[in-house]
Amino acid sequence: MNKYKVSVLGATGYAGLELFRILYSHPHVNIHKLSSVSFEGKAINSIYRNLGNINNYKLVSQDEAIDGADIVFAALPHGLSEEIAKKCTGKIFIDLGADFRLDNEEEYKSWYGNEFSEKELHKNSVYGLPELNRTQIKNSKIIGNPGCYPTSISLGLYPLLKNKIIGTRIIADCKSGVTGAGRGLTQNTHFPDCNEAFSPYKLANHRHIPEIEQTLSIMYGEKIKITFVPHLLPVSRGILSTIYCDNIKNSDIEEIHKLYSEFYKDEYFVRLMPLGEACNIANVTHSNFCDISLHEDKHTNSIIIVSTIDNMIKGAAGQAIQNMNLCLGIDEKSGLDFLPTAF
Amino acid sequence: MNKYKVSVLGATGYAGLELFRILYSHPHVNIHKLSSVSFEGKAINSIYRNLGNINNYKLVSQDEAIDGADIVFAALPHGLSEEIAKKCTGKIFIDLGADFRLDNEEEYKSWYGNEFSEKELHKNSVYGLPELNRTQIKNSKIIGNPGCYPTSISLGLYPLLKNKIIGTRIIADCKSGVTGAGRGLTQNTHFPDCNEAFSPYKLANHRHIPEIEQTLSIMYGEKIKITFVPHLLPVSRGILSTIYCDNIKNSDIEEIHKLYSEFYKDEYFVRLMPLGEACNIANVTHSNFCDISLHEDKHTNSIIIVSTIDNMIKGAAGQAIQNMNLCLGIDEKSGLDFLPTAF
Amino acid sequence: MNKYKVSVLGATGYAGLELFRILYSHPHVNIHKLSSVSFEGKAINSIYRNLGNINNYKLVSQDEAIDGADIVFAALPHGLSEEIAKKCTGKIFIDLGADFRLDNEEEYKSWYGNEFSEKELHKNSVYGLPELNRTQIKNSKIIGNPGCYPTSISLGLYPLLKNKIIGTRIIADCKSGVTGAGRGLTQNTHFPDCNEAFSPYKLANHRHIPEIEQTLSIMYGEKIKITFVPHLLPVSRGILSTIYCDNIKNSDIEEIHKLYSEFYKDEYFVRLMPLGEACNIANVTHSNFCDISLHEDKHTNSIIIVSTIDNMIKGAAGQAIQNMNLCLGIDEKSGLDFLPTAF
Amino acid sequence: MNKYKVSVLGATGYAGLELFRILYSHPHVNIHKLSSVSFEGKAINSIYRNLGNINNYKLVSQDEAIDGADIVFAALPHGLSEEIAKKCTGKIFIDLGADFRLDNEEEYKSWYGNEFSEKELHKNSVYGLPELNRTQIKNSKIIGNPGCYPTSISLGLYPLLKNKIIGTRIIADCKSGVTGAGRGLTQNTHFPDCNEAFSPYKLANHRHIPEIEQTLSIMYGEKIKITFVPHLLPVSRGILSTIYCDNIKNSDIEEIHKLYSEFYKDEYFVRLMPLGEACNIANVTHSNFCDISLHEDKHTNSIIIVSTIDNMIKGAAGQAIQNMNLCLGIDEKSGLDFLPTAF
Repeated sequence: MNKYKVSVLGATGYAGLELFRILYSHPHVNIHKLSSVSFEGKAINSIYRNLGNINNYKLVSQDEAIDGADIVFAALPHGLSEEIAKKCTGKIFIDLGADFRLDNEEEYKSWYGNEFSEKELHKNSVYGLPELNRTQIKNSKIIGNPGCYPTSISLGLYPLLKNKIIGTRIIADCKSGVTGAGRGLTQNTHFPDCNEAFSPYKLANHRHIPEIEQTLSIMYGEKIKITFVPHLLPVSRGILSTIYCDNIKNSDIEEIHKLYSEFYKDEYFVRLMPLGEACNIANVTHSNFCDISLHEDKHTNSIIIVSTIDNMIKGAAGQAIQNMNLCLGIDEKSGLDFLPTAF
Repeated sequence: MNKYKVSVLGATGYAGLELFRILYSHPHVNIHKLSSVSFEGKAINSIYRNLGNINNYKLVSQDEAIDGADIVFAALPHGLSEEIAKKCTGKIFIDLGADFRLDNEEEYKSWYGNEFSEKELHKNSVYGLPELNRTQIKNSKIIGNPGCYPTSISLGLYPLLKNKIIGTRIIADCKSGVTGAGRGLTQNTHFPDCNEAFSPYKLANHRHIPEIEQTLSIMYGEKIKITFVPHLLPVSRGILSTIYCDNIKNSDIEEIHKLYSEFYKDEYFVRLMPLGEACNIANVTHSNFCDISLHEDKHTNSIIIVSTIDNMIKGAAGQAIQNMNLCLGIDEKSGLDFLPTAF
Repeated sequence: MNKYKVSVLGATGYAGLELFRILYSHPHVNIHKLSSVSFEGKAINSIYRNLGNINNYKLVSQDEAIDGADIVFAALPHGLSEEIAKKCTGKIFIDLGADFRLDNEEEYKSWYGNEFSEKELHKNSVYGLPELNRTQIKNSKIIGNPGCYPTSISLGLYPLLKNKIIGTRIIADCKSGVTGAGRGLTQNTHFPDCNEAFSPYKLANHRHIPEIEQTLSIMYGEKIKITFVPHLLPVSRGILSTIYCDNIKNSDIEEIHKLYSEFYKDEYFVRLMPLGEACNIANVTHSNFCDISLHEDKHTNSIIIVSTIDNMIKGAAGQAIQNMNLCLGIDEKSGLDFLPTAF
Repeated sequence: MNKYKVSVLGATGYAGLELFRILYSHPHVNIHKLSSVSFEGKAINSIYRNLGNINNYKLVSQDEAIDGADIVFAALPHGLSEEIAKKCTGKIFIDLGADFRLDNEEEYKSWYGNEFSEKELHKNSVYGLPELNRTQIKNSKIIGNPGCYPTSISLGLYPLLKNKIIGTRIIADCKSGVTGAGRGLTQNTHFPDCNEAFSPYKLANHRHIPEIEQTLSIMYGEKIKITFVPHLLPVSRGILSTIYCDNIKNSDIEEIHKLYSEFYKDEYFVRLMPLGEACNIANVTHSNFCDISLHEDKHTNSIIIVSTIDNMIKGAAGQAIQNMNLCLGIDEKSGLDFLPTAF
């Protein structure tokens, strides 16, 4: 069988490393080229020593990486992807950055400062959340891969929103492992400052807000506004979202559980916890799974949804590869069917 | 100067150790006796090796520890404190357990399963949150020392509630370090199960709920119901509460900040963060401080309060000693005026 | 292709979970049955929630698990394996415990307290370190899978010993992640006691000493005695051994590096670090690799070898499966060819 | 009582923060000024938020901090201290850097690249290990405060060396928490790279080697060479040294224990563990204690000493303040008599 040729742009960031690691063992692709601005000319295994003796991947320029590839992944800062998308005409382009996630140019501009220069590209792109957009993903060649927080929140709420079981006041209190902050050095990710510490950041002011609201609004059919507070969790991986909603229809939690069970029954990567148990980041670590647990607070008439993913896999590289599988028309689980490691 | 004689019941639990550690350096007290059911006859420094050569404290029975003491602290499972309070007549009795926290016997019974056998004792006891009840504490000899979560949430909300700036829908998403679960062994506090893990527990079903609601209701002047979800945070110490409220009067965040600043200006142990900064557990570690930061979400008209304490100190042993200082009429900061260690 | 039927005895311990996790994705085997004394009757995914909806594995008795299996893995306390080996006649039996590791019955008795009841079984068993005993493993049906510390130390020293480059005074200062202590609850693996702590244990008195000395002596051709001190490292996984030897022949470190490079050139799972770099546990996490780095201290004429493995994989389940692959005559890397996760 | 005026140069590094924190509560001193090159003009509590509302300490220039102080602490990179010492004539100057630790200019030059410009200053300076040099410290005004690793190793070996019980082959395998690497950002102290990782560094090539050998040689009376390998431990604080020696006189471990007990009986900050127990970093965290445990390996005729300190306190700021107390002729324990926190 001929294998597809895949290149990764921005291969030395954490998401880039995860793309490499998973694609390296993927049965239907070969890694073609890796690009890096900071480390061009070096071998990837000189940056990431876990790769050991895999020394046949030298980091090249973006153009060199794009050239000859069938599929291009970009894990880059925002604002660069339109240019790359243009160069990828005819190829599958999967963007792990923010540039192709938002439909609304105004929103994009207000949160990211840039305009859409190439409006046509945006029209042709699809938001790559397979559980929501599977058919469109299969038919598109530009995929805006979802952010980690939006993935966790959207999958947690989809059945409730779709069935209008809850009101529009939604609060998402989210906690992310430190890989979510990337490989770049900062004081608050310096080990002694970060270890045994815990803090919220960008409260109600995080760039994922427009993306979350866009997706939830599509699911609900009306405009949703969310209060979103992320926290930096002193673990390496994982996101856990605790989501608070109003049980406006006084629904029974058993019925809601049944609804979720039915709704997600064909979604391999979404796993529903039994009633009475709560999600734990450790249960999805190093996997492409999203675990969801459902809880009620009768005395305030609230529903509480807990949703957890590995921020680097279902929240980034894994979901990107899931999207690639869909675009290629191969088994959606290809290369992604590994169990969580537990620890 | 004559020093007061202090005994600690349940000295080998984590709160007991913290009481010992702080009282050992307290200028106005001497440690009289320590009791332990599990380790009676052993020396405290054989259980806690950090105490090194401090070998003059053998663990004795409760009765032996009470006898001759001026002040008795109890850090014991619930249901045992009424009996001890009776034996402590004439002494100051500070209970770190739950038995003297709730005014409402029905609530106590429904969450803890026991009745109030000695109603008179309950009438004479005071809830030991100095920032709320300082005068009563000074005049009481039975103190129900607040729980860790209730302390953090109550101090975070007091000025807002007192001034009725927010509505009655309050959500507290709280995260506690593992010492909060105590010294007893459980699977989910076993290092490999707990490390690099994160999970909520007892969602909207934790025994601190009636205590939190009792205090918030007193502060507000009307019955408050709260949605309370605690999480187990893989750090040793600290609680951080992220609290979501409705900004029903469209108050300005700068004004709210000014209000807090004024409200707490004489409270040494409450520290207000500047606007624009968020609390971090690491900033209060190993101290009796409660840090509070204030945030707004204009687009959902919410106020977000973040409050953090060291669960073992302001959330347990430190606050108990603060209460003792009040009862004794000495400087409230005695023995407690140490800076957080940062790490 | 017909797949081999594999059973795991003691499936709910950490090594059992790792066996399950790796075997579940192994291309040539099907998991037949899992046994557990403590959890018989329950489903494995009710114990390990990371397994999600994999609910077709109920824990059964040992006899039920052995019956019908082609291959049996045992991850049990010592002293039980002879009985199981007898029941496994005709099958491949791979013992992750200590019962089939030592050749010398006296040593076994002095460290473990038991005798060899079935001497014939011991004669037919092989010590399962593929890099040392590959041929014998292929021809045996009873494999004593090496301990985690011995694997790390033996692979680190093999070329030096084989070539008699070093003297016989060897010191191994080893550090192991907490999964090495197992799933059972103890005070010193309780999160608050273990987190931010670090301590040696069983100094020069650990049961792995006779196994280490047996293997090193075979490699050297003469009796080797080792000073072995293990430490409990507050991470979940990994062993790193720092090994100190006398450079009795004044060998050049570049030559020693060349020797190692040549010696291990066909060993896929042994990776040699470039001179000037040191091993890190994180580089082998979640993989079957053993990384080795070489260092010299000219001013004391010492050679320092650093060797690191994932204690749960190359130090337990992964090596056991590597041994199974050898016994089956299939590719030694089958099911084990995954890259380390880095974090 | 008049309090001494103390200034700290380099107050925003970790050692500087510890100096501030301990001196702030010291009964005999007032903090005069703090200097910082990077943060001049800012308040110390804007850098370290754990200091809360302590806003009366603005960071100034070195000259401004020195002026008017009775005592000056410097926690700066090497190569700067001679100049400062000159400016401190008439004051007590305690240097936490390396410039006044080595007697031998050649050694200093070969490891640090600089010469002694002011030889007179070096003659008048004293190596500030109170357990070794108490009298000289009392009579000196320039103190070279010991490094963290040397403190731990020297105190661990002193009685053995003084009594020539061991041979001259000594191996020190040391593990340090990440604060030892300082506040500066590096990739290997970035949380995701450092967490769940473990690695040696600068094997047999660390700048503390000449300092260690100088002290051990003084203790032994002959030149000692040591094999020294430090490791980066994923905890915030603490150093644990495991030290291997030859038991050349076949001494009994009980006798050695008695010897240590006698030797250190008046040293408040050195604590000897009972035979059969091993040191743990957690037992000295946040204290000025050094714990020592003694072990033997009869079958290789070795003695193993384990020694642990808090690298930031007995390994830096605490010992510096202990030296200040000695210079001032006040109780050596002043301001330092706090118990370890355990966690």
